[in-house]
Parts: sequence; C-alpha cells; structure tokens
Amino acid sequence: MKDKRPEWVPEKAGKEFTTKVMPGVKTQHDGLPNNNEKRTLKAGVKRRELSVDEYFNGIMAKDRRVLAQAITLIESNSEKHMKLAQALIKQILPHSGKSIRVGISGVPGAGKSTLIETLGLNLINAGHKVAVLAIDPSSTLSKGSILGDKTRMEFLSREKDSFIRPSPSSGALGGVTRKTRESILLCEAAGFDVIIIETVGVGQSEITVRSMVDFFLVTQISGAGDELQGIKKGIIEMADMIVINKADGDNIQRARMAEGEFNQVLHYLTPATKGWQTLALACSALKNIGIDTIWDKVLEFKEITIENGIFEKRRKEQLLEWMHSMIEESLRTSFYNNPLVKTLIPEVENKLITDEMTATQAVTELLDKYRNQS
Amino acid sequence: MKDKRPEWVPEKAGKEFTTKVMPGVKTQHDGLPNNNEKRTLKAGVKRRELSVDEYFNGIMAKDRRVLAQAITLIESNSEKHMKLAQALIKQILPHSGKSIRVGISGVPGAGKSTLIETLGLNLINAGHKVAVLAIDPSSTLSKGSILGDKTRMEFLSREKDSFIRPSPSSGALGGVTRKTRESILLCEAAGFDVIIIETVGVGQSEITVRSMVDFFLVTQISGAGDELQGIKKGIIEMADMIVINKADGDNIQRARMAEGEFNQVLHYLTPATKGWQTLALACSALKNIGIDTIWDKVLEFKEITIENGIFEKRRKEQLLEWMHSMIEESLRTSFYNNPLVKTLIPEVENKLITDEMTATQAVTELLDKYRNQS
Repeated sequence: MKDKRPEWVPEKAGKEFTTKVMPGVKTQHDGLPNNNEKRTLKAGVKRRELSVDEYFNGIMAKDRRVLAQAITLIESNSEKHMKLAQALIKQILPHSGKSIRVGISGVPGAGKSTLIETLGLNLINAGHKVAVLAIDPSSTLSKGSILGDKTRMEFLSREKDSFIRPSPSSGALGGVTRKTRESILLCEAAGFDVIIIETVGVGQSEITVRSMVDFFLVTQISGAGDELQGIKKGIIEMADMIVINKADGDNIQRARMAEGEFNQVLHYLTPATKGWQTLALACSALKNIGIDTIWDKVLEFKEITIENGIFEKRRKEQLLEWMHSMIEESLRTSFYNNPLVKTLIPEVENKLITDEMTATQAVTELLDKYRNQS
Repeated sequence: MKDKRPEWVPEKAGKEFTTKVMPGVKTQHDGLPNNNEKRTLKAGVKRRELSVDEYFNGIMAKDRRVLAQAITLIESNSEKHMKLAQALIKQILPHSGKSIRVGISGVPGAGKSTLIETLGLNLINAGHKVAVLAIDPSSTLSKGSILGDKTRMEFLSREKDSFIRPSPSSGALGGVTRKTRESILLCEAAGFDVIIIETVGVGQSEITVRSMVDFFLVTQISGAGDELQGIKKGIIEMADMIVINKADGDNIQRARMAEGEFNQVLHYLTPATKGWQTLALACSALKNIGIDTIWDKVLEFKEITIENGIFEKRRKEQLLEWMHSMIEESLRTSFYNNPLVKTLIPEVENKLITDEMTATQAVTELLDKYRNQS
C-alpha cells in the first residue's frame, strides 16, 4: 500500500506535515465525503494557514472542512503547529465533552466496519451526528495498515452528519493516543454527539481505546464451541458489551450459540464497569437486525453510569491517567533515546543474562551513567 | 497489629535496619523454626556483621541462619548494605536458578496456607527442600498485614528442610519485588529446589508474583453458581492452574462443581503459558487429598516447558523485564518525588480537570519545570 499525504497542507508547511494517512475513505482521507462537495484541489496543494480564531470559529460553525484541517494541525509534529493546536484545543475545551464516546474493537473479519456503518446510519437517521475516528496499531508497528486495506463505510461517509477520520499513523502509540484524544474534543465542539473510536484487536490498541471511551464494545466472530477458544487475554474483561455480528443466513444458529456461551463466560468475570453487567448480543449489521438493541443498551449504560456517577468519574480519571501516562512516556523516551543509553543497553543486558551482573547492578550502572553525563 | 523488627540486626546498624517484618511464624520472623534450635538472643540484639565471603560460604554450606541474615541484609535500605548485598548476590548468581519457582495466590479464606503447608510437607518427605517467601501487598498499602494475621504453617516451619520467610514490608512494591527476587537467588544457592512465592489476591501483587515464577497457581473458594461470580480481573488468565481447596466434608460436591465450571471457563481463555492448558483441580489440603496430583501437574508443566524452551525463555525475559521495570520505576520516582513537581502536580491536575489547561499543556509545563530546575 502506498503512503498518502493529507489533502490539505498549510501554506508554509515543510516536511513536518508529511504525516502519512490511512486511505480509509475512497480518494479522500481527511474525513470528508467525496460526493456532495466539489473539490478542485489536488493532494498536497498548499492552502493558507488559518489562525486559531479561524479554526475555532469554523469548528463552532460546524464546518467539517475546518474540523478536518484542525485535526491535520493536531497531527503535525512541528513545534510551531503543536503550539497552535494547543491554543486551539484550550479554546475548544469548554465546548467539548457533550457526547457519548464509544470504542469498537475486534479482530479483522468480525465485521467491525459494517457494524459501524449500519449503526452510524441508524443514528444519523435518528438525528445524531456521528464521528468515527480510527486507531490503527499497525501504523505504529509495521508499514501496512490493517484498517485501511479497502474502501470502508462508503454509505456512512456520504452522509452530511458523519465525519470519518482515518488513523494518524507513524510515531509511537502514545502520539497516536494524543492525536486521537484531542481529535475527539474537536469533533465534540463541532457538534458530533456520538464519537466512535474504532480499532483492531491487536497489541495495546484496545487498552488505549478503553482509556478514552465511556463504553467499550468488542466484536467477536461467531463460531461453535472450539472456535471460541483463545479469546484474547483481558479483552473481554475490558468490554461493556460483546457483539457477535453476522447473525444472518446460515450463521444464525452459530451466532446465537456464541451469544449464549459468551454470556455464560461473562457471568464469571468482573464487569469492566461498576454497576453494569457486561453482556453478549448477536446481530446482523448486514440486515440491520439487532443493531437498535445494541444502541438501546448503550443508552441504558449511559443512564446508569450517569446516575451512579461512574460516567463523570471515569472521564476525569481518564484525563488524569492520560496526563500521567504522557509524563511517564516522556521520561522513558528521554532515557531510552539517549545515545549513551542506547550504546550501553545491549552490553548490560548481555551481562545480566550471562550472570556477570545482578539486575540491581545493571540498573544502577545505566541510571548513574545516564544522570551523570551532562 | 504491632510492627516487629527482624531478630537479627548487624552490629553497627542504625535506623535503616528497622524494617518491619510480618510475624508469620510464631515468635520467629526470620524464617527459622522455633523449636529445634535453642535461641537465647532477644529481638533487636546486635550481632557481628558478616563479610561477603562469610555470607557466601554460609549460604553455600546450607546454613539457614546465615541465609536468613543475608536476606535481612538484602532488605536493608542503607546504601552500604545494598552494596554488600549486591556483591554477595553477584557471587551467588552462578549457583542460583536450580529450582522450580511456584507462585501461589488467592483471596483470604481460600486455604492458601494449609495448601502450602501440606504441599511443602509432602515435598520434604519426598526429599525436596522447600523455601516459602511471601509478598504481602498490604504492607505497602496499609499498616496491617493480610498474610500475617495468625500463626501460619506451624508444622512446615518446624522442618529442617523448610525455610519460611515473611514478606519484607514498608516501601513501594518495587522494593518488595527486588528483595523477594534476590531472596529467591539466595535460597536457591542454599540448596532449596522448590521455591514457593505466596501472595494474597490483592492489587498488583499477583502480577508481581507472576513476573518472578515459572508456574503460577491460584487458589479459589469453592461455591456453587453465583458464588463464583466476580473472579478478579485478569487473574485467571495469568494462572497455570486453579486449585479449589477444601474439597472435604460437606463441601466435596460444591468443590467438584466449581472445578467443572472453572475448566469450562478456562476452555475459552488463552492459556498463560504457551503449550500448556491451564486447568482447575479440586483438592483437600486438610486431608492431603489431591495434593500429589497438583504436584504431578507442576512437574508435567516443567517437563513440557523445558522441552519447548519456554522455561528458559521466560526466565530470561523475566530478568530483562525486571531490569527495565526497575529503570522505569526509578525514572518515575525521581520525577514524582521531586519537591518542585510535588508542589506543582495538584495545581496542574486541578487546571486540567477544570478545563483551564489541555493535557498536553499540563505535561509540557510539568516536564519543562522538572528538567530546567537545576
């Protein structure tokens, strides 16, 4: 797959804007639909840089193009753009937060995209505005993209009240987390009241998504008995709901069985959210069967958690935890990216493994040299 | 419960040796039995400080008293003693490692102590030497001790071939981890070929224990249906075996049912160790029924994991992970214990929660001030 650049790039932008994006939506990749609006600009064409106020006013006026540009600004790694972005977010903050943030995860093939598309279309028909942001762990792990390997959510992307934004790629997951979390705030300020954070069930990405959403939904493949084996560690225990999609055609029986089996297993596990019993539901996104039930449950969840205070409490905790994890990541990165440390680590690890050094000695040696070098 | 000091304290030791210990064994708390050997020393009496060679020779001669003293040395937080301890451990390293390290965890009331006592006595009768080290998370969280609230393992503690060491308390879990991990090495050098690390199922302590053992066993209470609900998050997925103790008297039926139900749940979860199907077993430690089966399974596990290379691989990984987690803990501690940071954190957190500051701004502010202060 070829890397793409965001369509919109600020006027005087240099290399720092060559952030690769995931081509999730056909020919477009800044979250805008590709029908209704005439586009004459070519990819990479430079436009006038907006001021913080222009970004702010555009977002508050629910202008999706400005929203898309603001997210591109957030994704820039240049110091100047980061400062601009932070000023914007600070102005946006009081207008953010008024949404339900729903995480949707699952292994490839579990029908995530179809589920999000059908759910999103239903919600838009009911008067909601739906933003879909993706976190693609593959972009930090490898060059290929798991989520962006085909045109996805074509119908949803055509809707005026949808906003689909592919995953910011390149860089550590921590950077992706920051970009996604800040994008959520912008989307909320732009009037999107349902924010869906999509990820694929790989590596750390589910934990990352769980840390930024109110409700976490995991899609699972249907399949009888043994096929259910080997559910990814811990994933079920983070979920507020497990959805077995593709309960249609020949598959209905198997999906119902899986639903029952999952509910049995869930019975034994501590729920992810206090006061809420995690449940499994079978549905068919293809035929739009059971999708409304899923959303009813999300609303029930929201009501219960607002009532018992968990909703607000979790959001505050998530914010503080996020700050602390950014701090810790920065401390770690400074250490491990230090040239001296980089040289020493392989030596020290080797001495440790061959019993030439105790672990405590290894740590002391590395930290002493790191701290005394300047 | 009153805090106790270790019985043996080096000659010139000051305040750094007032490490509280958990009174796990009646009147004794340095891992020695209280019968067979006449003790005239009173608690807190100071003895001559040993040299590294004396410690080393004593341990290699399987002298349990020297072993106990060496562990007390490891537990000291004084810099001088830490250096001495590291020199000792380095000398010990080539003689360590020849054991099976078994973690045993479970909620209070699940019969952990009785299980360890019966298992330990069986193993000693079969010619093994058994060391039991405890990690008591309560000691780092609160003042009280969960594991040490009564005299435990009285019969096992009387055996010549046993060594029972209560948890080092006070200080962060990281410090406790270091002390326990280093104690394992000393016990192994002293000829103990079965090392049991005991903990109670609270907080992070299970993860800590899992990170230092070959085999991880979790005890669960027996009980029908609903009583099994609410199994602690992730704990089952770390386990290589789940033991339902107290399968005796009126309880046999229920324990067998629980065994079956657990095995059903386990069927759906990824095993903790590659190539090994985690299983549930009912037993009665009180009547010594099923305890041999548990050990047979441990041996089978050892054989399989040595065969497929997981045994060695895990030990090396554990060693490296431990080093890196010590480094990260040290980086974190330096930051959060910094006086300026301590002052700033509450302010910044408050600004973050009240939307006066973005998370990225909060992080930047804290890190800039931390790094530029000296």
